[in-house]
Amino acid sequence: MEEKSPKPIRCKAAVSRAAGEPLQIEEVEVAPPKAHEARIKIVCTSLCHSDLTFWRMKDFPGVYPRIFGHEAVGVVESVGEGVEELVVGDTVVPTFLAHCKDCVDCRSERSNLCSKLPFNLIPGMPRDGTTRFTDSNGDPVHNFLFVSSFSQYTVVDVAHLTKVDPGIPFEKACLLSCGVSTGVGAAWKVAEVEAGSTVAIFGLGAVGLAVAEGARLRGASKIIGVDLNPEKFELGKKFGLTDFVNPKEIGERTVSEVIIEMTNRGADYCFECIGLASLMNDAFQSSRPGWGKTIILGVEMHGSPLCVSSAEILNGKCIMGTLFGGIKAKNDIPILAKKYLNKELHLDDFITHEVGLQEINKAFDLLIQGKSLRCTIWMDR
Amino acid sequence: MEEKSPKPIRCKAAVSRAAGEPLQIEEVEVAPPKAHEARIKIVCTSLCHSDLTFWRMKDFPGVYPRIFGHEAVGVVESVGEGVEELVVGDTVVPTFLAHCKDCVDCRSERSNLCSKLPFNLIPGMPRDGTTRFTDSNGDPVHNFLFVSSFSQYTVVDVAHLTKVDPGIPFEKACLLSCGVSTGVGAAWKVAEVEAGSTVAIFGLGAVGLAVAEGARLRGASKIIGVDLNPEKFELGKKFGLTDFVNPKEIGERTVSEVIIEMTNRGADYCFECIGLASLMNDAFQSSRPGWGKTIILGVEMHGSPLCVSSAEILNGKCIMGTLFGGIKAKNDIPILAKKYLNKELHLDDFITHEVGLQEINKAFDLLIQGKSLRCTIWMDR
Repeated sequence: MEEKSPKPIRCKAAVSRAAGEPLQIEEVEVAPPKAHEARIKIVCTSLCHSDLTFWRMKDFPGVYPRIFGHEAVGVVESVGEGVEELVVGDTVVPTFLAHCKDCVDCRSERSNLCSKLPFNLIPGMPRDGTTRFTDSNGDPVHNFLFVSSFSQYTVVDVAHLTKVDPGIPFEKACLLSCGVSTGVGAAWKVAEVEAGSTVAIFGLGAVGLAVAEGARLRGASKIIGVDLNPEKFELGKKFGLTDFVNPKEIGERTVSEVIIEMTNRGADYCFECIGLASLMNDAFQSSRPGWGKTIILGVEMHGSPLCVSSAEILNGKCIMGTLFGGIKAKNDIPILAKKYLNKELHLDDFITHEVGLQEINKAFDLLIQGKSLRCTIWMDR
Repeated sequence: MEEKSPKPIRCKAAVSRAAGEPLQIEEVEVAPPKAHEARIKIVCTSLCHSDLTFWRMKDFPGVYPRIFGHEAVGVVESVGEGVEELVVGDTVVPTFLAHCKDCVDCRSERSNLCSKLPFNLIPGMPRDGTTRFTDSNGDPVHNFLFVSSFSQYTVVDVAHLTKVDPGIPFEKACLLSCGVSTGVGAAWKVAEVEAGSTVAIFGLGAVGLAVAEGARLRGASKIIGVDLNPEKFELGKKFGLTDFVNPKEIGERTVSEVIIEMTNRGADYCFECIGLASLMNDAFQSSRPGWGKTIILGVEMHGSPLCVSSAEILNGKCIMGTLFGGIKAKNDIPILAKKYLNKELHLDDFITHEVGLQEINKAFDLLIQGKSLRCTIWMDR
């Protein structure tokens, strides 16, 4: 009954050899999974803004060579010792946050930040810090966010893998791995948006539009998008957006003044999805006294602090931050997959482009130029 | 059956004629209540830090002459037109926040900020902005926070009055009018402290100690007080404090490092009760990743913004601000009064001193010097 021990696999991967430079398609060797790990055949992956952010970093935590990618879907090729929840052939979604289901955080309804395998920026596997990748010279290639999905095969800790219904198309399941789950989760699990409420979303990338989709699912009556790109309004309507504010087209007024007027005193829920301290304050100022919640999803791009009026927060306002939209992967991703299959959750329109692995740099260009929401990267094309 | 229209009343009041200067005991005239108002015979009042804050202000919203005082208890002497919920002889607690019970905020469980009679700093009555006080020269004397309780009689809008069980001793009911309700409410209604949770309180004045009392009532297992005055620990034990951190006695370590160690990763609930931006950040840093809530009660004394790490808040942290501890006066003050009468809520130890109206300036000195928690000022002595 004992299966033969898995051997190293040689496959293609898109390797980043220097900050900000195009990825190179190389042959890499992927070691067998160790205990509590599984080796995954990646079917497709997509590019998330965090990939860009880290790919631009010259200094730590920017390390090279590295295999980026953390939003993906794949099939279990082999499993290491002690892996009981997955078997070869399972369809799995990897996630940058662990969900061990055992620590105090995983057992709590309130936290999605596993404290057994806490999130950090080490460029290796979560339990031993080493990488499973070597290049053709036999040199190690670093891991990224515990996933490294820009490779035809990758090794992922079982705490970072969620089994999903194989009935969901791969490219749709891929979206649930990071960005879309983050946005939908922020509306659903963090803000707990209520039917009839008003929502303002600052920044209409995939995450911001996923917040709109989450707010629509929860029955919000007014969902206002704020973005400098006027094309985002038409696009956003597909995800429930009802109103749009372009900061360039409001004259002398501030965005918060406009939103306060549109919502009669401020939006119940304001989401910052860009990562700019000034926009976080705009979101806060646009939130309703009495109960307004401001939810911060964006990683501040300059490291600036979050600053708001200490007097204004006393008016019953609240600011909440979240990683991965409060999603506890193994509990919540299957729920979202089911909602997609039931045609409740809209995912199709997030995919604006698709390429094969060989053209992965085109996916970078599209995202940098703001032309794509998600570009599916098929690993076998 | 028609009662005779009430006439003006002449009585003693402590009038503030210039910022920061001792109050003067003067005879004033108190006009009859207008529609939706009641004239109250104040039985006792006490001094709250906000009285000091405004009394020190030379410029707007500092206006003189003025009758300060907003924490009090009294008996209804007469009522104006349209007052149905109160009759002459009722024992009432005035509050600086209105509770009209009719607007969208008053009808919501989530807000305690009446939007029909919103909180503001005008020095008059909430509906018409005028004052009911005139001095012996016939000149108007300004109102304070819609209460002005440093007078033997005052006129208060019925939305700012809560009827309480006359079985509660006046000096105890007085505490529920502002500071103690604010602290207990912040733990109970804003943070919703849970049994077995950990709490850190920054600043152990009456409000901070009331937070401890509220956390004790909710079953918190560890209640840590942070204060520069070592005497506050013994005092705080009466209100449930289990641990104490004196920032002057922790060497090179920061307060948040100490609290993180004491609580294994940070306190579940951190309360800022002083009004210092740096302390708000200390409280935030002391709160637990995953679900830590920081509750801001203090009015920042220099007007500085609240600034925290935009990266750290992403770890599932939350910052909430509150006025009056989320208390909806007419619903919640009777509940607190009942808890006192049932010997669940400890109030007695908040009262450290008592004086007659003639000695009201002594109450100011005691609070300024940090010697008193609450000094009861009896209006007829």
